[in-house]
Amino acid sequence: MIERLCIVGVGLIGGSLARALREAGAVGEIVGASRNAEHLQRAVDLGVIDRFDTDIAAAVRGADIVFLSVPLGAMRKVFELIKGSLAGDAVVTDGGSAKACVVTDVEAVWGEVPAWFVPGHPIAGTERSGVEASFADLYRGKRVILTPTASTAAEALQRVRAMWQATGAVVKEMEVRHHDEVLAATSHLPHVLAFTLVESLARMSEQREIFEYAAGGFRDFTRIASSDPVMWRDICLANRDAVVAMVEHFSNDLDALTQAMRQRDADAILKIFADAKAARDAFAG
Amino acid sequence: MIERLCIVGVGLIGGSLARALREAGAVGEIVGASRNAEHLQRAVDLGVIDRFDTDIAAAVRGADIVFLSVPLGAMRKVFELIKGSLAGDAVVTDGGSAKACVVTDVEAVWGEVPAWFVPGHPIAGTERSGVEASFADLYRGKRVILTPTASTAAEALQRVRAMWQATGAVVKEMEVRHHDEVLAATSHLPHVLAFTLVESLARMSEQREIFEYAAGGFRDFTRIASSDPVMWRDICLANRDAVVAMVEHFSNDLDALTQAMRQRDADAILKIFADAKAARDAFAG
Repeated sequence: MIERLCIVGVGLIGGSLARALREAGAVGEIVGASRNAEHLQRAVDLGVIDRFDTDIAAAVRGADIVFLSVPLGAMRKVFELIKGSLAGDAVVTDGGSAKACVVTDVEAVWGEVPAWFVPGHPIAGTERSGVEASFADLYRGKRVILTPTASTAAEALQRVRAMWQATGAVVKEMEVRHHDEVLAATSHLPHVLAFTLVESLARMSEQREIFEYAAGGFRDFTRIASSDPVMWRDICLANRDAVVAMVEHFSNDLDALTQAMRQRDADAILKIFADAKAARDAFAG
Repeated sequence: MIERLCIVGVGLIGGSLARALREAGAVGEIVGASRNAEHLQRAVDLGVIDRFDTDIAAAVRGADIVFLSVPLGAMRKVFELIKGSLAGDAVVTDGGSAKACVVTDVEAVWGEVPAWFVPGHPIAGTERSGVEASFADLYRGKRVILTPTASTAAEALQRVRAMWQATGAVVKEMEVRHHDEVLAATSHLPHVLAFTLVESLARMSEQREIFEYAAGGFRDFTRIASSDPVMWRDICLANRDAVVAMVEHFSNDLDALTQAMRQRDADAILKIFADAKAARDAFAG
């Protein structure tokens, strides 16, 4: 049972965590924090949080768990703001989509990775954002990856694990660096491709006609291009090395396929497509 | 009213056309044709077609409309098989995803584009294939593009248009070459990207783990990679020039974004992502 949870950044991710814990009866008071009083008031009106404070240092006072759900580019600033205001037994965790950069930010502010900090990442979300899009079942059956470092306390890890389990999520552990590589492959690269494709087509002169003839497959394929641009800019910068490496890997494979098309190499093209279908059918069940 | 419709290739596309016309009361007899008696028998068992013939020349005899729904690579062979067996007033149309190649095949077999041939393309489908996946509402509200050539008879065009309208589809006309460019952008390129991405990830040593942590966005993004590999190989070869040009256009834009990431050019990255989101939100409504 969490007595007081402080959520910094009450959008889809933070708001859904609040709703899920409330529904599970796993939390006493929920305090929201960010710089935007209007957003926070909406979260109160929706019953997602109990109260809020736009003074982030004040908001975290007395909380036993602090969850940071802000764009990766804002993490360090938030760490600076909360330093010195945390309760003695507070555990801090986050929901950032890349983890090495968050660990670096924590180290920069505290000079080490404190024992009470548990880097985390719920693998859930939709292309929508904002507290209005939040719902209690967002995490049910989904994975949450925790990436404790060598200095993370077992008790802190256990408290964060219990919090996520109360939402119905399946909690896994992974090394920081490995997390960033896996996510670059399955999440960051696809977003980069979807954003690039839609922007590329939108710059064509016949863009209205092009989108008019787009079928359902295109709609599914480009859904993630409706994701929050600021959040994804931050992810691409924060996890830059892994993302760039994955894009280069993909580009090499795309070049090879294009070359096969130029040479009318039917067998090479078929092998790539058939292998892809087999893999996709296998993981999608 | 179509008295006898012959469908060559009774899968998702041909089967759904049959079901839709039957439901609309717009067709008398439906004859299925292909080389696979087992598939055709299943189509009879499902009530999709009335009878079948694996002798394609025999199957088209006496039909007032012949619909070809075979992979693009098989079109020319089918044209050769039906030449000489068509009824005097028969109209022939097809559902191929690229149109210049089909027109070339027709010309190769008849020495010209006959007045009774109407190239067509229903912009509908799912990643599934086969007659079991067919359903009567597949075309409802969807676009069907007809690409008549200079020699196409107005009456033939009108009969094919009426057939598709009976399925609930919205029929549009477009020039052959323009069709192939628009479809390269909105359909062929996205399929190439999805196949390449999944195959690229599947070749990584940690593929099982990678797919395990894929979230809903990845599932949507890669759905089209479950499409029929043979059909898509044929499309890439048949519409090669337009597809290669679109891939090159995309690759240049992907390189520019990657360069912006390398240089940590936050503004350039944000502009691409924000423009993509705006375009995607606009067309997806």
